[in-house]
Amino acid sequence: MGILLRDVRLPEHGTASFWIRIRGNRIDAVSKEPLAPDSEDEVVDTGGKLAVSGFVNAHTHLPMVLLRGLADDVPLEEWLERHVWPIERKLSPEDVYWCTLLALAEAIRGGTVAVADMYFHTDRVAQAVEESGIRGVLSYGMIARSMSEGGEKELRTTEKVAATWRGAAEGRIDVAVSPHSAYTCGEDVWRAAKELAQDRGLRIHTHLSESRQEVATVRAQTGGSPPEYLERLGIFEVPTLAAHCVQVSESDLNLLARAGVVVAHCPKSNAKLGSGLAPVAAMRARGIRVALGTDGAASNNRLDMIEELRAAWLLARGPSEDPRALSARDAVAMATDEGRAGLGLPPARLRPGDVADVVLLRLDGVHTTPASEGLSTLAFASQSSDVTDVWVAGKSLMRKGRLLTIDEERVQSEVGRLLRRHMN
Amino acid sequence: MGILLRDVRLPEHGTASFWIRIRGNRIDAVSKEPLAPDSEDEVVDTGGKLAVSGFVNAHTHLPMVLLRGLADDVPLEEWLERHVWPIERKLSPEDVYWCTLLALAEAIRGGTVAVADMYFHTDRVAQAVEESGIRGVLSYGMIARSMSEGGEKELRTTEKVAATWRGAAEGRIDVAVSPHSAYTCGEDVWRAAKELAQDRGLRIHTHLSESRQEVATVRAQTGGSPPEYLERLGIFEVPTLAAHCVQVSESDLNLLARAGVVVAHCPKSNAKLGSGLAPVAAMRARGIRVALGTDGAASNNRLDMIEELRAAWLLARGPSEDPRALSARDAVAMATDEGRAGLGLPPARLRPGDVADVVLLRLDGVHTTPASEGLSTLAFASQSSDVTDVWVAGKSLMRKGRLLTIDEERVQSEVGRLLRRHMN
Repeated sequence: MGILLRDVRLPEHGTASFWIRIRGNRIDAVSKEPLAPDSEDEVVDTGGKLAVSGFVNAHTHLPMVLLRGLADDVPLEEWLERHVWPIERKLSPEDVYWCTLLALAEAIRGGTVAVADMYFHTDRVAQAVEESGIRGVLSYGMIARSMSEGGEKELRTTEKVAATWRGAAEGRIDVAVSPHSAYTCGEDVWRAAKELAQDRGLRIHTHLSESRQEVATVRAQTGGSPPEYLERLGIFEVPTLAAHCVQVSESDLNLLARAGVVVAHCPKSNAKLGSGLAPVAAMRARGIRVALGTDGAASNNRLDMIEELRAAWLLARGPSEDPRALSARDAVAMATDEGRAGLGLPPARLRPGDVADVVLLRLDGVHTTPASEGLSTLAFASQSSDVTDVWVAGKSLMRKGRLLTIDEERVQSEVGRLLRRHMN
Repeated sequence: MGILLRDVRLPEHGTASFWIRIRGNRIDAVSKEPLAPDSEDEVVDTGGKLAVSGFVNAHTHLPMVLLRGLADDVPLEEWLERHVWPIERKLSPEDVYWCTLLALAEAIRGGTVAVADMYFHTDRVAQAVEESGIRGVLSYGMIARSMSEGGEKELRTTEKVAATWRGAAEGRIDVAVSPHSAYTCGEDVWRAAKELAQDRGLRIHTHLSESRQEVATVRAQTGGSPPEYLERLGIFEVPTLAAHCVQVSESDLNLLARAGVVVAHCPKSNAKLGSGLAPVAAMRARGIRVALGTDGAASNNRLDMIEELRAAWLLARGPSEDPRALSARDAVAMATDEGRAGLGLPPARLRPGDVADVVLLRLDGVHTTPASEGLSTLAFASQSSDVTDVWVAGKSLMRKGRLLTIDEERVQSEVGRLLRRHMN
């Protein structure tokens, strides 16, 4: 059985009306001419909605929705040490499961079809991802000064996650190896992580050069910047997704470009925590692929990729005084294609043969009138609540504004319960 | 007959439940204890919605919604001269009326209760504002090199608008005098504008120091910066609302503080057009009142005050690397109280005696869970589509997500018609 979308618009085709047929997990056909349904096909008349490739959240910590609105006005290090970590230490696997589902409900409602998540109790994150129907590149965030000081155990946890979840959920789930950062993992831990990643064919997903304090710490400990240090350890021989890259020098940028590191730009989190502004235009000019992530909701405070791409756009243009820095097409590419590259996902550009990770947005709101420029409307005028339908690998996760895979009421009640337990 | 809101939350009172009674155009009572309804009162059980002071859009050009998505990637001067003005010249009064209604539908849906609008065909802007039930400080944007080169006519137009609309719509409409800017109006036009404003007791609403090019032009013509030039002409003896103030020096800031000018900060428009970043923290540190405006939708591309205050927040923190620049309270104050100061509106802080410009937002979405910190939730987690109810001066403009004063379908169909006429 397939799905036949009737009367959809495509971002780069003005107000022209298209038919799209989804068969199995793939786009089967896209046509201006009517496509004939098979007897088994479900026909969905969208009435002129915009069909787009679903968004990829290339760096997040889903369960942190629990901490939304906690300590909104402090810098990164203080925020982690005094506010975030003390609560996180108390979270049970069950807590992490419910918080992940809450986060995924928000993500799917905003048109996100894939996430790169780094957290702990990863089995329960993965369970929620599996049940939700979304794609996930999941990792356990390892923190250990050395292999003998906890590193062995961290690596074993990652190994176990990889053995259990790699390729699970009909291939929707992949696993990454995540040393938390250059300053929270020791050299032998990094070397062992690299070896594990190479051995299992996994990507590395880490935090890199997020704050001035991190750069100073790593420089003091290793004599180099975080990218220089990791390059020296040979880490970038493994495909690497590096979140943030805010405090990077010209030579760091050249290094990242040479190494083929994909950057997960998190503009809202970096701005909120006062970490600074990643040089996105300079990155892109060097050919660095820049994906987009929300980071955890605690430092955002949303998991909204439309808002994120708009923040990237504004933060690239305002301070630089360059009205040509980051077009609608650039911003949308960061939230889609570049994210897919960072996560190692197959392309999904709504061409026949592409996987069917498709999102529909209504264009009939007063705020999207006029909507003749689809890309501009999507990037600069639309809002996450315009998303009405989401398919991942051809499977429907949201239909006409209703989530099909997550019981939101139940999730909110469970999270309410654990909030009362942890916050009082 | 009054309205009794039952079970509402207030931004600074956690999860406590309140009753609010509205009588006529004012808040009559706010109480944790149940308030008894009169037989005439309508009781609205909000089920825990957040009640907030409605937003004030302190600088906009409402009819420009027509140009949403037009030439997204060019600098201010090119954008105005090559793209915006050629279309605007062709707009009829009827066009302006329908476009204003479209804009107001978007504004009200996002919780906006008052706008400072500067445009032309002002009678039709005012008609739409009157019908919509929103508050407006409306002005005709005057452009004239000198009194003899069009200035006389521009002033007469403003005079006529003031005579017709000042205090109209039960006092919801006020009129401002708007020389478009220091570089588009000559000295004698500015002097005449000041005289008119003083004579009629009107405010001045203008564009000030928006771009480097403007500052260079004014400096070349007058020997001073735009604020210095206007101060020399005595303009600031009139209460002045100055949009943008992006390219301002330390001494400009001191001057603006001394003169009591209220700044209408338009962070998204300034970023989009590459004009730069107004130094909001420095302004506020000097005691300058900073309100918030979307500017026209063509340079935004939305009229969403929640998105605008969030952009102000991010743009104040990221580039400055200061996680304490602009708190949730600061950002919300800019979008409410400071806007009211700039427009000369009475306070509306949901205290007994305040005018009832009240907005309700639902807090039951997954994206606003948890919502125990009301101010943080409003500023950083909520979205314009969470707004369900809007009262202006005690009159209901939106109820449970339905606009009561604007026929959206009709407006969209009329705007569709004129779009086809102007864009083809």
